[in-house]
Amino acid sequence: MAFDHRKYRPAPVVQRPQRRWPDQVITTTPRWCAVDLRDGNQALVKPMTVEQKTRLFLLLVKIGLKEIEVGFPAASQPDFDFVRKLIEENLIPDDVTIQVLTQAREELIARTYESLEGVPRAIVHVYNSTSITQREQVFRTDVAGVKSIAVNGARWVREQAARRPQTQWTFQYSPESFTGTELEVAAEVVNAVIDVWEPQHGQPVIINLPATVEVSTPNVYADCIEWMNDNIRHREHVVISLHTHNDRGCGVAAAELGVMAGADRVEGTLLGNGERTGNMDLVTMAMNLYSQGIDPKIDFSDMREIIEVVEAVTEITTHPRHAYAGELVFTAFSGSHQDAIRKCLANQGDGKPWDVAYLPIDPRDLGRRYEEVVRINSQSGKGGVLHVLEQQFGITLPRWLQIAFSRVVQETAENEGGEVDASRIHGLFQQHYVDTPAGWQLQGYELNREDDIVRATVTVKGDAGADVLRGQGGGAVSAVVAAVQQRHGITLEVEGFDEFSLGDSTDARAMACVRVRSGDIVGEAVALAEDTTAATLQAVVSAAGRVLAAREAGLRQAG
Amino acid sequence: MAFDHRKYRPAPVVQRPQRRWPDQVITTTPRWCAVDLRDGNQALVKPMTVEQKTRLFLLLVKIGLKEIEVGFPAASQPDFDFVRKLIEENLIPDDVTIQVLTQAREELIARTYESLEGVPRAIVHVYNSTSITQREQVFRTDVAGVKSIAVNGARWVREQAARRPQTQWTFQYSPESFTGTELEVAAEVVNAVIDVWEPQHGQPVIINLPATVEVSTPNVYADCIEWMNDNIRHREHVVISLHTHNDRGCGVAAAELGVMAGADRVEGTLLGNGERTGNMDLVTMAMNLYSQGIDPKIDFSDMREIIEVVEAVTEITTHPRHAYAGELVFTAFSGSHQDAIRKCLANQGDGKPWDVAYLPIDPRDLGRRYEEVVRINSQSGKGGVLHVLEQQFGITLPRWLQIAFSRVVQETAENEGGEVDASRIHGLFQQHYVDTPAGWQLQGYELNREDDIVRATVTVKGDAGADVLRGQGGGAVSAVVAAVQQRHGITLEVEGFDEFSLGDSTDARAMACVRVRSGDIVGEAVALAEDTTAATLQAVVSAAGRVLAAREAGLRQAG
Repeated sequence: MAFDHRKYRPAPVVQRPQRRWPDQVITTTPRWCAVDLRDGNQALVKPMTVEQKTRLFLLLVKIGLKEIEVGFPAASQPDFDFVRKLIEENLIPDDVTIQVLTQAREELIARTYESLEGVPRAIVHVYNSTSITQREQVFRTDVAGVKSIAVNGARWVREQAARRPQTQWTFQYSPESFTGTELEVAAEVVNAVIDVWEPQHGQPVIINLPATVEVSTPNVYADCIEWMNDNIRHREHVVISLHTHNDRGCGVAAAELGVMAGADRVEGTLLGNGERTGNMDLVTMAMNLYSQGIDPKIDFSDMREIIEVVEAVTEITTHPRHAYAGELVFTAFSGSHQDAIRKCLANQGDGKPWDVAYLPIDPRDLGRRYEEVVRINSQSGKGGVLHVLEQQFGITLPRWLQIAFSRVVQETAENEGGEVDASRIHGLFQQHYVDTPAGWQLQGYELNREDDIVRATVTVKGDAGADVLRGQGGGAVSAVVAAVQQRHGITLEVEGFDEFSLGDSTDARAMACVRVRSGDIVGEAVALAEDTTAATLQAVVSAAGRVLAAREAGLRQAG
Repeated sequence: MAFDHRKYRPAPVVQRPQRRWPDQVITTTPRWCAVDLRDGNQALVKPMTVEQKTRLFLLLVKIGLKEIEVGFPAASQPDFDFVRKLIEENLIPDDVTIQVLTQAREELIARTYESLEGVPRAIVHVYNSTSITQREQVFRTDVAGVKSIAVNGARWVREQAARRPQTQWTFQYSPESFTGTELEVAAEVVNAVIDVWEPQHGQPVIINLPATVEVSTPNVYADCIEWMNDNIRHREHVVISLHTHNDRGCGVAAAELGVMAGADRVEGTLLGNGERTGNMDLVTMAMNLYSQGIDPKIDFSDMREIIEVVEAVTEITTHPRHAYAGELVFTAFSGSHQDAIRKCLANQGDGKPWDVAYLPIDPRDLGRRYEEVVRINSQSGKGGVLHVLEQQFGITLPRWLQIAFSRVVQETAENEGGEVDASRIHGLFQQHYVDTPAGWQLQGYELNREDDIVRATVTVKGDAGADVLRGQGGGAVSAVVAAVQQRHGITLEVEGFDEFSLGDSTDARAMACVRVRSGDIVGEAVALAEDTTAATLQAVVSAAGRVLAAREAGLRQAG
């Protein structure tokens, strides 16, 4: 049987009824370490060139990363060369510390320090595997064996550092495959390393506890971190670091709960690149903090650039639903969502806390535009269409026209099957309402009010030349309606009339919307003009013209 | 300031020191409900056609989904038509229940039931928004207002169902935007709905608690679910359902902790399609259970087909690092990972629990091949290269040749910058070792052993015809070496000699590997033949031929 769950065993859990982390809330940002240039690079079909590494390093520095793992110099010549380049070309700012990874082997540690010659400060990150699986099947050794590898590694790291006192050294140790290691074993090995390094005497020490493979729900990882937090020697002198992966899709959750459980520092990569399912995504976790009003200490305001650089060096496209970064993550197609967003956005103001339905953060913070938030297809409703007209074209419609126009857009979306973009919406609006029906372009008007009666003379231009219509009524609109009725022998009733002055965003100063009915036939029209009267009269004759055109079409069809 | 965290407020947390969920472990699979055809569909740039919906529905049924939300028929004509198609064309198997969504409005509920006319069983899912943001800014109402919308909706749902007793109805209610709603308010509204539906008298009722927007770390969602679990009336007669989104990248974690907190059922979509950042991914959560030895009740053995259908109907490509499904998630490029995987895979056997470093599950369970697991680039080491040769070509190398050949591959990878695929590795192996140097193709041999001395006559074919070499020594190899030495006036020392019989996967039955040295010059060669002696002698003369060719090239260069 190919698909059979019975060959798997559950990962062990921690009995820890006294756990404290579920009562914690993260209120400050942990120390970040970006491992894009090492873990991320090791997971690429095509590893980065030195030029690409430099580009990504400069981006990481620019957006605020202060600790950056730059490679595995003893294992890779390009990584060695890159470390030398950073040092020799003086590319490391004073407040940035580079970190390099090495296995706990003497010749590799020596080679690692060679690569770091002359660096002002650096973190030397040494690791060995401690898990049951690796002990039994890969290294064929016991707990004492992996502990001795770790302790020897720690000694060589200390010795090599001692020969180079001009550099400020930080030592970092990872019990690799920590999530597959018994906690007691992990603590025994880690404490043996701590005993070699003696952080209590001033040596900066980081203990990194990787979910090399994610094997449990994230609460179990948090339990493990809290257990380690309580069992690490000289805890107050040690920085506890997390490094999670996404094998179960929960790398960010594990890191968050791990920080609640006492960790000080988190390793991750931009957009989560890394071995297999990837590393903890720095963008997501940092923006999660940001969304709670916590300074994330990384500047994501130019998310477009971040995506561009990461995609260029990894050759991996960002998923459209990637939290905070994907193309679609701030977009609502659903009508009710669009309506709610529109109403909430209208309420937002400077200084008010952000509070918008369906948008946990303001897309503009990341360089996105509100225009992307509401996109229209067959799932969208009135609210979205109005939002697009308002936001992008400064056009507000009266309620009766809102309903009619959203139906026009809905039908178009259903017939065409895809998105109806803003310019198409504007085009539909023009076509259905603003375009003057043939023969009904207003050329001039004369209005004369006397004894509560308005006499109107309007000149419209048809294919056959100008046509002059005359009528009278209680107001300008009714006078023009009467003029059309007389000329064409129909009855017309005005069912809707609204006029708006428009904002500065358009040349026209007024927009008139008119709906007239003749029996079963309805005509709707919108006119824009600098002169409010011209807008009104154009809208009336356009609407009337549409009624007459529909009537003729009906008669032709009947005939 | 565009990027300023100070405009955000932290989401509220639950004071719940008595929480029980962190001590729970998931041991059985929850009820699944696939909402791909509704939530997923509403989030697409181009919503699915009825044909596409049918294709996805049939896939969901095929892989084992028993509850499937198929649309929002009152809001969308294509959804209405699709529901009618399912019913009229009898596409719903007896053990599958369709679910439809509706807002809590009378005319929409009536229209929803119209779409369901004649269905044997169905879940009618009614919702209204209850969050503070939606109450204050969208609906401009109070708690009593949203409660009354919910209660009226529940009544209409019950009334419409009562008119159609031939269908087995399940009622589902969602306090939409639950994660933005005070728990007391959510419970008040939900309990009012439960009072209308009276599950204690046999009416099946589902209460769905959506993280419409993910606003907190997943433990807070779990606290909320546990609180609701403890405060819902007639809890034993109610199914508690979860519906999470990925705004903070933790939809799977939230659902998992929510199940630990007492939920019975989880809504999600294949590969996480859905509004904005997407829904909880059914693939990830179900496979997480599978990896712990729990029957996930969904069959993912043909993951390729699942990806193909989902990509076709959503027009969204699967990310290469998507848990369990992405192209790269079972691939190791790093040398140490490859080495560990190779050793562990060699240990796996039928009936043994799965236990392989860096591979939480067996990729073959999902229709993937081991060939994809180890891929070679400049980050890879010896182990990976050997793995490829062994797995794909049945070739095992002696240790001295392992080191030499992995250097050849490493240099190629560094020079070319990208991946070195299996056929290229095989080609490099052929070119560097197996191809016979010009003039050294073995044509025949004669071996004669007498008085502990072997006399050898070998015929090799050069451009100028056959060349016969004669020599003697303690064994066949040394005799042939002596023959070459005599003919070409050089000294040759055999540094390595290994011979293997090959498995059934190849025509050749033996592979000989030889390394000879003459001063500073080393020649390595591999020969494959059905006759083990032919393989040995060919390898010896090939290696010797390489030494001579290198010497000539060196002399030319010096000259």
